[in-house]
Amino acid sequence: MRTALISVGTELLMGQTVNTNVVYLSQELNLLGFDIMYHHTVGDNPRRLEELIELVCKDCDLIITTGGLGPTQDDLTKEMACKAFHDTLEVHEPSMKKLQDMFAKYDRPMTENNLKQAYMPTRAVVFDNDRGTAPGFALEDQGKWIICLPGPPSEMTNMYQKQCKPFLMDLSEGVLFFRDIRMYGIGESAMETAVLPLIENQSDPTIATYAKTAECFLRVASKKPTLEEAQEKVDSLLPRIRELVGEYIFSEEGEDLPQVVADLLLKKGLTISAAESCTGGLFASTLIDIPGISAVFDRSLVTYSNRAKMEELGVREETLEKYGAVSPETAEEMVRGLCEATGSDICVSVTGVAGPDGGTEEKPVGLSYIGLMYDGNVTVTEVRTNNRRRNWNRTKNMMEMLSLVYRAIR
Amino acid sequence: MRTALISVGTELLMGQTVNTNVVYLSQELNLLGFDIMYHHTVGDNPRRLEELIELVCKDCDLIITTGGLGPTQDDLTKEMACKAFHDTLEVHEPSMKKLQDMFAKYDRPMTENNLKQAYMPTRAVVFDNDRGTAPGFALEDQGKWIICLPGPPSEMTNMYQKQCKPFLMDLSEGVLFFRDIRMYGIGESAMETAVLPLIENQSDPTIATYAKTAECFLRVASKKPTLEEAQEKVDSLLPRIRELVGEYIFSEEGEDLPQVVADLLLKKGLTISAAESCTGGLFASTLIDIPGISAVFDRSLVTYSNRAKMEELGVREETLEKYGAVSPETAEEMVRGLCEATGSDICVSVTGVAGPDGGTEEKPVGLSYIGLMYDGNVTVTEVRTNNRRRNWNRTKNMMEMLSLVYRAIR
Repeated sequence: MRTALISVGTELLMGQTVNTNVVYLSQELNLLGFDIMYHHTVGDNPRRLEELIELVCKDCDLIITTGGLGPTQDDLTKEMACKAFHDTLEVHEPSMKKLQDMFAKYDRPMTENNLKQAYMPTRAVVFDNDRGTAPGFALEDQGKWIICLPGPPSEMTNMYQKQCKPFLMDLSEGVLFFRDIRMYGIGESAMETAVLPLIENQSDPTIATYAKTAECFLRVASKKPTLEEAQEKVDSLLPRIRELVGEYIFSEEGEDLPQVVADLLLKKGLTISAAESCTGGLFASTLIDIPGISAVFDRSLVTYSNRAKMEELGVREETLEKYGAVSPETAEEMVRGLCEATGSDICVSVTGVAGPDGGTEEKPVGLSYIGLMYDGNVTVTEVRTNNRRRNWNRTKNMMEMLSLVYRAIR
Repeated sequence: MRTALISVGTELLMGQTVNTNVVYLSQELNLLGFDIMYHHTVGDNPRRLEELIELVCKDCDLIITTGGLGPTQDDLTKEMACKAFHDTLEVHEPSMKKLQDMFAKYDRPMTENNLKQAYMPTRAVVFDNDRGTAPGFALEDQGKWIICLPGPPSEMTNMYQKQCKPFLMDLSEGVLFFRDIRMYGIGESAMETAVLPLIENQSDPTIATYAKTAECFLRVASKKPTLEEAQEKVDSLLPRIRELVGEYIFSEEGEDLPQVVADLLLKKGLTISAAESCTGGLFASTLIDIPGISAVFDRSLVTYSNRAKMEELGVREETLEKYGAVSPETAEEMVRGLCEATGSDICVSVTGVAGPDGGTEEKPVGLSYIGLMYDGNVTVTEVRTNNRRRNWNRTKNMMEMLSLVYRAIR
């Protein structure tokens, strides 16, 4: 079904509240196979809300609203839904009783405006709210549906899972399956160019390209009557994708690179330590963000000063003087010293010019060296980001370290 | 001006990406005095985008789009903007030259689809993109404006601040001045309650409250014919704010806590080292993200395993056995060992249960101890976050470490 999401609330337009409802509902509805055409956000303004409902009715079979169901004067979603879907409000006895019981139980006086929440469209399927006072509902008119859910995320998600989702599963046809095929070491346009023959000649499964900092991915998606058929359709394209860009793929299940590396380390029982200069603890922090990593992560020595490199890792003063802190020689001595100190199965070191200043013609901002010791072998890899941004350079180096670890142990 | 924000991108409709652009632009535009009527999100679909531009044109004087300016086939925002605003695309020579130079510089072959980014509407005011390849622009037709910005947040915010914001300030009347007064150690609702008398009786300057992870801030803003008048109006409120919440304020100029701490360390020439367990390098990484910090940041020993705590910091085995890794005793031995090894002017250590699992009744998830050594004194501070989220706990601990350093040296 073609679907539009409408969020109601002036606080969203002011940018004071992040619209997490729309993210949650989009993910859930996509998984159920609903096609989402629009997200709209309007303030607590009856005319604009009414116009918007009318507009999306032209294009969509299902509208889901969040917000504007509460007791206050500017909560008008229900009234506008009734107007557009040709119904009127009347007291919904079970909701009224529940409301009265609740106020009695907490011994709070019920103000007049609270009663408003117990009014429902006469033809509505009412969704009970066990986390708050405003019920939700679904209302049909001429084959189109509007579903109104409360705005507070805890009430909305709870109502969605318990009542709205089962209701939608009865309404929908088909199930969507998708795979995110994640890559490192290739840019988004190069990736698109590589898979263009597939994109151009393919309507099912669909293929879309996405980019994140220092990585990118393909989403391959198909919608079929059953999950099995959809998955089969998606997977039928995998061999061809692997042929075209296989060398860059690190996950066909959507996990990010830190997660893939952590899973591999844990699965193989390989311990890891790091010696970080320019990344400044970002490599450690990224891996340590993954629960359970303590089983294999030993330590990271963030040796930012030259003195720390000498004291913690045994880098020789003459190496630093002769070749500089940013050199393959220093990266190698860092990783060898680290390995000696920790005995970890994998040791990785990095030293570079993060920027934005401090570069020279010989050693520009974005130049770095990554040392890797695994299975008795030491390698040093040179990285040139051609970028002046400190944050980007540090992230890129962290990703490159993860990628080198991945390639070594996969 | 009545304004609509249109976000373009199927990934937003799929719920895979949180729309941070719309939050950022809403906050910024509200400060400039623009009235935001709508947020709309559409996929990479030319017809729906065109219809949406037409619809909001009826109601708004300014449309700002984000996304859909890139090199790929489904990037169509520019074409649709031209259609609705009666213009055509032509090669924009400076953009073309910049694109060619960039590909030449990095010695990468420029694929055909990249050229598309150098085409601009003939009447456009072009916004240069110094963080990416797609320029943005502003285009006028019959007194209405459309501004198209790139989708990646780092490109969008950079272009907004450097080029779009000055452009919008010329379009709007009056000048806005604001101060972000940043605080740590107080929650958003407590902060709001404390300054409520000011908020309730004040229409100019306006006061708004915002929350970020583990910190919050007040934005005090005024719009006047001149900058001087606006600033004077804002500053007239400062003494009263300091009276109410002064003990929590760490900046009246909007800098974040890491920046404030880094500035203080650099100004006073104090060297710093850290010993991190549960934060896993996040403290180091946060400070090292600040350019110039190498003058004072010596090292961080990310001693995640017990063995690393003993070997790197001299924590005694019996301390770990008797009191556990998460204990004031361990935090203290960590910071003493660190100080002995580094001789830094300030040493800070942290050990805690980051979660989501691994807590006990005695030592629940979110419990941590922070050791601080400065000027010969050692203190240990207990932190309880009452939160199970690993990422939140790690961030909260990092902020608490910064706050303790700040209070020690300010």
